[in-house]
Amino acid sequence: MDLKKRALAMHEKNMGKLKVASKVKVENEDDLTLAYSPGVAYPCLEIEKNNNDIYKYTNKSNFVAIVSNGSAVLGLGNIGASASMPVMEGKSVLFKEFGAIDGFPICLDTEDPEEIIKTVKMMEPTFGGINLEDIKAPECFLIEDRLKKEMDIPVFHDDQHGTAIIVLGALINSLKIVNKKMKDLRVVISGAGAAGISLAKIIMEKGVQDVVLINSKGAIYDGRDNMNNAQKQIAKITNLKHKKGQLGDVINGADVFLGVSVADIMTEEMVKAMADDPIVFPMANPDPEIDPKLAFKAGAKIVGTGRSDYPNQINNVLAFPGVFRGALDVRAREINMEMKIAAAEALANLVSDDELKPDYVIPKPFDKRVGSHVAAAVAETAVKTGVARRRISYKEEFENATKLLAR
Amino acid sequence: MDLKKRALAMHEKNMGKLKVASKVKVENEDDLTLAYSPGVAYPCLEIEKNNNDIYKYTNKSNFVAIVSNGSAVLGLGNIGASASMPVMEGKSVLFKEFGAIDGFPICLDTEDPEEIIKTVKMMEPTFGGINLEDIKAPECFLIEDRLKKEMDIPVFHDDQHGTAIIVLGALINSLKIVNKKMKDLRVVISGAGAAGISLAKIIMEKGVQDVVLINSKGAIYDGRDNMNNAQKQIAKITNLKHKKGQLGDVINGADVFLGVSVADIMTEEMVKAMADDPIVFPMANPDPEIDPKLAFKAGAKIVGTGRSDYPNQINNVLAFPGVFRGALDVRAREINMEMKIAAAEALANLVSDDELKPDYVIPKPFDKRVGSHVAAAVAETAVKTGVARRRISYKEEFENATKLLAR
Repeated sequence: MDLKKRALAMHEKNMGKLKVASKVKVENEDDLTLAYSPGVAYPCLEIEKNNNDIYKYTNKSNFVAIVSNGSAVLGLGNIGASASMPVMEGKSVLFKEFGAIDGFPICLDTEDPEEIIKTVKMMEPTFGGINLEDIKAPECFLIEDRLKKEMDIPVFHDDQHGTAIIVLGALINSLKIVNKKMKDLRVVISGAGAAGISLAKIIMEKGVQDVVLINSKGAIYDGRDNMNNAQKQIAKITNLKHKKGQLGDVINGADVFLGVSVADIMTEEMVKAMADDPIVFPMANPDPEIDPKLAFKAGAKIVGTGRSDYPNQINNVLAFPGVFRGALDVRAREINMEMKIAAAEALANLVSDDELKPDYVIPKPFDKRVGSHVAAAVAETAVKTGVARRRISYKEEFENATKLLAR
Repeated sequence: MDLKKRALAMHEKNMGKLKVASKVKVENEDDLTLAYSPGVAYPCLEIEKNNNDIYKYTNKSNFVAIVSNGSAVLGLGNIGASASMPVMEGKSVLFKEFGAIDGFPICLDTEDPEEIIKTVKMMEPTFGGINLEDIKAPECFLIEDRLKKEMDIPVFHDDQHGTAIIVLGALINSLKIVNKKMKDLRVVISGAGAAGISLAKIIMEKGVQDVVLINSKGAIYDGRDNMNNAQKQIAKITNLKHKKGQLGDVINGADVFLGVSVADIMTEEMVKAMADDPIVFPMANPDPEIDPKLAFKAGAKIVGTGRSDYPNQINNVLAFPGVFRGALDVRAREINMEMKIAAAEALANLVSDDELKPDYVIPKPFDKRVGSHVAAAVAETAVKTGVARRRISYKEEFENATKLLAR
């Protein structure tokens, strides 16, 4: 049976993929008295006295809202909030499976960023964290920025930061193989939306100085036409030589190509025009910017894609579950840059020097170690950078996450 | 151990009472392909083509938002959205246990009814129904009215209609014992908030003509001061004789007393002043308007309270789980008056003529038959009154609900 038939059949048979379940039994009068009236009044009154007790007496600390308006879903574009529900339920399934987190889909029928901001803020009592998902650029930048400032719980737009974290992890390991340093790299990023801009920011934070972003209208540079605010900002610190033109014009001599754009825009000639030992991550889904086989044929040293049928799969389940697990466990107020970099380094460290080779620079999605290692690194960094409400050691968090994930 | 200690310990041990769970396994690459990218794109595209397919491919048909701003929680008053979380999680547990429904707490940090209306409307893609909970009057009336008009899924304020349905069921059976008719009754309702007004409406719909509502400022009549819009409206059709004064002034000769107000406002003398075979339902929680023992001593024929330690417990779990189960299963667009009355009659019918006696006029909360009987009656009535998106017979729905509830 083909994928379409199987996917529809699976969704129809189960009527979706998600349910809500009780952690306590209510089988008799006494159970009812404890879980509901009159016993439930006591935790309510404790929380009224001390707002932080909500973490003690409710599941807030493990609830994450998966918020979308369906305006940029997978490769499908703006299909709307209703049509995005299967993806958000799927995301929740992944939160559970890979992070032991109770993610709940909140699909909002609006395209107005201010309405999304207001609504999500109002729901802060229920949730320990907010995962923004499949909201189109440039609105996603405004929404995330404002919510980060105006809420006291972590807000994380996975389309931006999830990919960035994993690519950074893969890049750290790739550089060990090709024996190059971050500060010396020339990097070209194809795609200047949510993922591309976040990629540029995180690798520059780790020392890369020469980055050129390019989108369908050509290379991004300060002063170019047709740019949104986020692009204008990133243009101030990237492509300082004001290179113009298409991918073929800017790829010459680049050490690294990172693709978060569309299928088949990269040719063998372009790979050949790169520096020695080119690192090529064509991550467009489902079809990459260049077929990995062609990239290798043209001399690419290391290739990573979004696909499971090639080595080095850049799959978001490597990042967001552990990032949220760690942030929630220390009741972090935010997920800052240091925590994202710690997550990338934790991913990189899971590949030992002995195992490291061009077709294994990043752990595989079903590597059971990933969630707890990322969580422990993120939690430790949250404590170090002062955004944790609760102190917990790397060891404690590692044990805690390992236990939760083993269920 | 006392109730406070036990309730706090139970909540702390479990870190709340709720979790989100997956209905599908994601244990390997192929599972991931079906539940998430790229397979999940197919149900998305089907829903984009035909919005009703969201019922087929997602759990929308079983998700109910439990919406509160914590402005009127149990007997605790306006404790705020965060402090209401334990109650909303508890409500979700009851939805699951008694209705096999996936209720999810949405605690909104606002006191502005317009903000609540806007937010709940925006979340329509995710949910199959909206249960409003513990929102204070008179805002609760405006919010429910507007959402009922502006949304295409059932909206039900349980504090209003849940109690009303159960009391109507108990009253139908009580009248068989005292051999009186609805149209001849004189009824006094203490409490003119959400529950009291809804009580008046539902019993009048079933034929009661003489109803007097009373609140802390005295009897409600057309033209009285200190009334909100909902009270002004109900004053036009109740207390047509414009009786004034306190409970002691209006209770003379009443056949039925329904209390949804505060403890200990009714005396033995007041019960003695009622008509023959008085029906007395003092339902204030946790302490009733009059102690049932005193009510019996003063000559009450039938007594019902909110308490589990007396007969005839008017407990909301008798109504809302079955009402929503039935409404969801036929994908009803609303829960109308006919459906509420059908629920009340179904409850009444569960007490057979042989079993019927003054201390058993309504089924007990843990009577396993309740959910499916109420659901089948509600679903059938939704189909009959033209608000169902899906036709289903009483028998089918009864079997469906029985199966779901047996899990």
